[in-house]
Amino acid sequence: MRPLVLTLGEPAGVGPEIIAASWRALSTEAAPFAVIGDADLMRRQGVPVAEIMTPADAAYRFASALPVIHRPLPRPVEVGRPDPANAPSVADGIEEAVSFALSGEASGVVTAPIAKAPMYASGFRFPGHTEFIAELTADAPYPGTRGPVMMLTAQNLRACLVTIHVALDQVPELVTAERVARTARVVHESLKRDFAIARPRLAMAALNPHAGEGGALGLQEIDILIPVARQLRAEGIDITDPRSADTLFHDEARATYDAAICMYHDQALIPVKTLDFWGGVNVSLGLPVIRTSPDHGTGFDIAGKGIARPDSMIAAIRLASEMAKARGAR
Amino acid sequence: MRPLVLTLGEPAGVGPEIIAASWRALSTEAAPFAVIGDADLMRRQGVPVAEIMTPADAAYRFASALPVIHRPLPRPVEVGRPDPANAPSVADGIEEAVSFALSGEASGVVTAPIAKAPMYASGFRFPGHTEFIAELTADAPYPGTRGPVMMLTAQNLRACLVTIHVALDQVPELVTAERVARTARVVHESLKRDFAIARPRLAMAALNPHAGEGGALGLQEIDILIPVARQLRAEGIDITDPRSADTLFHDEARATYDAAICMYHDQALIPVKTLDFWGGVNVSLGLPVIRTSPDHGTGFDIAGKGIARPDSMIAAIRLASEMAKARGAR
Repeated sequence: MRPLVLTLGEPAGVGPEIIAASWRALSTEAAPFAVIGDADLMRRQGVPVAEIMTPADAAYRFASALPVIHRPLPRPVEVGRPDPANAPSVADGIEEAVSFALSGEASGVVTAPIAKAPMYASGFRFPGHTEFIAELTADAPYPGTRGPVMMLTAQNLRACLVTIHVALDQVPELVTAERVARTARVVHESLKRDFAIARPRLAMAALNPHAGEGGALGLQEIDILIPVARQLRAEGIDITDPRSADTLFHDEARATYDAAICMYHDQALIPVKTLDFWGGVNVSLGLPVIRTSPDHGTGFDIAGKGIARPDSMIAAIRLASEMAKARGAR
Repeated sequence: MRPLVLTLGEPAGVGPEIIAASWRALSTEAAPFAVIGDADLMRRQGVPVAEIMTPADAAYRFASALPVIHRPLPRPVEVGRPDPANAPSVADGIEEAVSFALSGEASGVVTAPIAKAPMYASGFRFPGHTEFIAELTADAPYPGTRGPVMMLTAQNLRACLVTIHVALDQVPELVTAERVARTARVVHESLKRDFAIARPRLAMAALNPHAGEGGALGLQEIDILIPVARQLRAEGIDITDPRSADTLFHDEARATYDAAICMYHDQALIPVKTLDFWGGVNVSLGLPVIRTSPDHGTGFDIAGKGIARPDSMIAAIRLASEMAKARGAR
């Protein structure tokens, strides 16, 4: 299989050290990856570095050194203090990683966390990775319902979001039939293509407590969610009617579905992070390229102290690898 | 210690069988309880029954039989099919249990689940147990900030609710400074009085994702929650500024506080039920009487089949017992 490509993310954050730790943990495993970023910065993480020219070179070097496609940063990195002067390189790294995935030289992209403030200060105009990557891949052909849909994973839970980074009081109006249906279609298709699940079972989370309790606690279930679920089932998508969100996430409940369609950020993120705070993975579904990332931020407060846990980055690399295998196998 | 009094709740639901199972599990333990309800119905659960006149009699009978203050139901019980003709007896049982607690004959009340539809059909005019018990105890003296505040417990998590059974789109306007402050005060006082925690630590959950991200994802943190937290701390209550709800409920986070102040139903109930679906307890804080209940419904679909799990009822009895001990010890 072709290697994955990792981006370094914000160079002053925990990205470099968790990538180094991930290489240490994974270098004896089969799936190789290459990093796009500053080779000197990676050497300072205490791992052997092999400078390479293209992702394909990673395969032969991966067992003995971390393969890096060297893209020097314009300014020296001060750990914990992001420098907007380095932000364009961060964006360039993402763009190059995506182009390797689009060209087929890389099997997928794993992104380390970026910091929004210095990116915005340098002119970056996307809310985050996901939207940026969606734009970079907008013209690439894609066989199916296009996302991006954000999925968070933890243990055996896959939680997918209808709305993401919006204030809670904006959620109800954004939970439209169109958005819910599109999210469910993207997830259904992705579970088949990228997760090798032949017959995906989706569980729909209700917006309101007790799934609206027959209308007494909100009408969105009756007006929007139940009809959408019916329509989706008519399309051949196995999805439940809206279920009370508090009954969806314990062990027995999780065993009844392959992915939950959640209506808002905390409805998905609370169970994911309660179950697995350190190992969650953020996956972008419905894009021409495979993309995962750790489910945490840049950790400026802990960067460089050797205490950042690489669990989430390791899980993100493993998952991207599995997805690439599944997508390639079709 | 004086005995607890249990209500039978909806007689056609799982109440009778989980009470019988709880007696089997707890009869060798120290804290006795009495049931107010139909003794014949309890005999049919396969436990020895001792009819008693007052809660005090429970102490001497508890080890060998389930003590029941016999209140015959007007109509025979058909398992799984609630009869509105029996609903007034259900309400009477709650009222009598509360009066035993108010008079000091019982140390607290544990309520089995009730069904709303037959209660409403028979003229019951309260949303649920909590509001009914608040009304029954409204004239009793109470030293402190009066509730009721709903707390849900699971493992080492205590989650308290600012808003409860309302549609999600009504939550933001109901999250007022006054409601948040009152909830926090009731919880603070109750943790000291009923949970024997000398210096309670409260964690405030944010309303918006990422705690509003400095205003970009909602203004309620800046406009309401941060000022309320500051005011509460000035009163001597140890409470955090609003924290992202998705970072509040994993093991390490739970260790940092004694109770979480949650803004809405699913924000509290998702982590509680994800962590412990079967053993959660519903506690009413800030009332003149101690009251707990299992955190589940009447289970009409499984009633009488011998499969209803008594975990939550047993946990509710144990917790009421501990609370009575703590409250009595002051």
